[in-house]
Amino acid sequence: MFANLPQPILVNEVVTRDGFQSEPAFVPTETKIELVNALAQLGLNKIEVTSFVSPRAVPNLRDAEDVMRAITRDTDTTYVALVPNEKGCARALELAVDEINLVMSVSESHNLANMRMTCEQSLDQFARIADMSAGTPMRLNGSLATAFGCPFEGNQEQDRVLRFVDAYLERSLHSITLADTTGMAVPNQVFELCQAVRQRWPELEVTLHFHNTRGLGLSNVLASLAAGMNQFDASLGGLGGCPFAPGATGNICTEDLVHMLDEMGLETGADLNGLLHQSQQLGVIVDHDLPGQISKAGPRSLTRPLPESVQQLMQNGRT
Amino acid sequence: MFANLPQPILVNEVVTRDGFQSEPAFVPTETKIELVNALAQLGLNKIEVTSFVSPRAVPNLRDAEDVMRAITRDTDTTYVALVPNEKGCARALELAVDEINLVMSVSESHNLANMRMTCEQSLDQFARIADMSAGTPMRLNGSLATAFGCPFEGNQEQDRVLRFVDAYLERSLHSITLADTTGMAVPNQVFELCQAVRQRWPELEVTLHFHNTRGLGLSNVLASLAAGMNQFDASLGGLGGCPFAPGATGNICTEDLVHMLDEMGLETGADLNGLLHQSQQLGVIVDHDLPGQISKAGPRSLTRPLPESVQQLMQNGRT
Repeated sequence: MFANLPQPILVNEVVTRDGFQSEPAFVPTETKIELVNALAQLGLNKIEVTSFVSPRAVPNLRDAEDVMRAITRDTDTTYVALVPNEKGCARALELAVDEINLVMSVSESHNLANMRMTCEQSLDQFARIADMSAGTPMRLNGSLATAFGCPFEGNQEQDRVLRFVDAYLERSLHSITLADTTGMAVPNQVFELCQAVRQRWPELEVTLHFHNTRGLGLSNVLASLAAGMNQFDASLGGLGGCPFAPGATGNICTEDLVHMLDEMGLETGADLNGLLHQSQQLGVIVDHDLPGQISKAGPRSLTRPLPESVQQLMQNGRT
Repeated sequence: MFANLPQPILVNEVVTRDGFQSEPAFVPTETKIELVNALAQLGLNKIEVTSFVSPRAVPNLRDAEDVMRAITRDTDTTYVALVPNEKGCARALELAVDEINLVMSVSESHNLANMRMTCEQSLDQFARIADMSAGTPMRLNGSLATAFGCPFEGNQEQDRVLRFVDAYLERSLHSITLADTTGMAVPNQVFELCQAVRQRWPELEVTLHFHNTRGLGLSNVLASLAAGMNQFDASLGGLGGCPFAPGATGNICTEDLVHMLDEMGLETGADLNGLLHQSQQLGVIVDHDLPGQISKAGPRSLTRPLPESVQQLMQNGRT
């Protein structure tokens, strides 16, 4: 099971988008810029910086242009923006974003609830966005939300997910994300879907996006790794959750993910101590407790001094 | 990885011992009795009811005899008590407890901190306890605490763990528990140790006891399952943690564990809805938030009604 895991594992940070979008308070633009710049120094693969949505729909990200324009663009990092429509794509192109993330739910009802469109309408829009960005260096990633279950409809047929991957690729999208939008994925299901995708598209860049709603986030990462997957979204401190998904809480936590991978001997290139420092800063920024656990318990490698009474017992034993 | 998992999976409940022992407030004896009796109706394999320790050391369990005497002994359930010494064994024998749980830390320094004994002294004591209980129907389980790491010393050599399993069996203990006392286990390490134990002792009854301190509790269950293990300790609501282990928090949560196994199609015999009901009662008993997640998010199978606005959109789509 653990003999031939893929390496290195790529970690994508989504806190300034998925995390901040649903915070009760607006995070100041300057704070967002500082955080993105700090995160870019910590060996992460991609940073989903913001979302080019309507400021009325997501007021917390109304400063999308300002943030994207002001950050320092590290050449080793892919800077991503979520884009819900052609207007968002135009804004992303103007700012030379490296990659845009397009989202459709596998579940028809969830797509209607989240995007106010049928799946067919979403796919048509992806085709138009692909036309708009053709010939530019901007990459298109397509997320399949509710790929592991819909809060309204329950399980989604694996065939339906695979058909939509096909539909994404037909519309010239470059990579896909299988997203567990409301934390419904379970490990054997994850293993099976990942294996099916990997078998059919061995070279496709695939990201897994898990939420820890039901405590299974890192278990699902493990199942994905066993199926050969090597790229994961995560949010600093475990901040975030889909505001349109009832009961949804918390992306998997970046530093908890990196800690697990580090301690399993898997290379990520990410700087755990740096992440822990930023996570502590994040707690100050959002001014509430964060679900991440390593920032509270410390890494397992951080041993503690022996209590004095035990030191004495050990010395007595020796004499 | 998921093709040949063992079934059924046995779930042992430890909340009235491991959970209540470190609560700030004493839980009334009558409440403990009611909870044990209710849990025994929910298809659990064992219930670790209490601990026959000194009332000064663990005042919260000073009613050990009263609880053990008053509970209704369901014949399908194994009732367990933790026992730290011969005196505790005598009390357990008097009450005809089904099984006692003996604990030694694999780490010398942690055993000194926790039990005030060297490992050698612990093993000598186990031999005397085995003599005391020989010829009675009482079973002896031996826990290997810090089997996946010690908060003072770090990693423990796998050979050292295996040597102590040997030492337990030489002293006539019937079964063992590999315990991750302070939540240091990582999945590949768990897989390797479980596999080594399973290979050397194919018929030995082995329980895994994980804490979720670093978010890896259920991932470690998954790794154990993959190595053929089929018995797990868990605590209702995720209550508990070792009071002598710095930073240790929370056993894995019974209802979160059962939810995962149910949804993976693995048989446990445990009643998830009943557990969720008891977990809600437990929140009232201890009067604080519990770390368990299914009691907040609901089982994944519990779909929600479609929002009315989406119903309208779907109807419009059809007309």
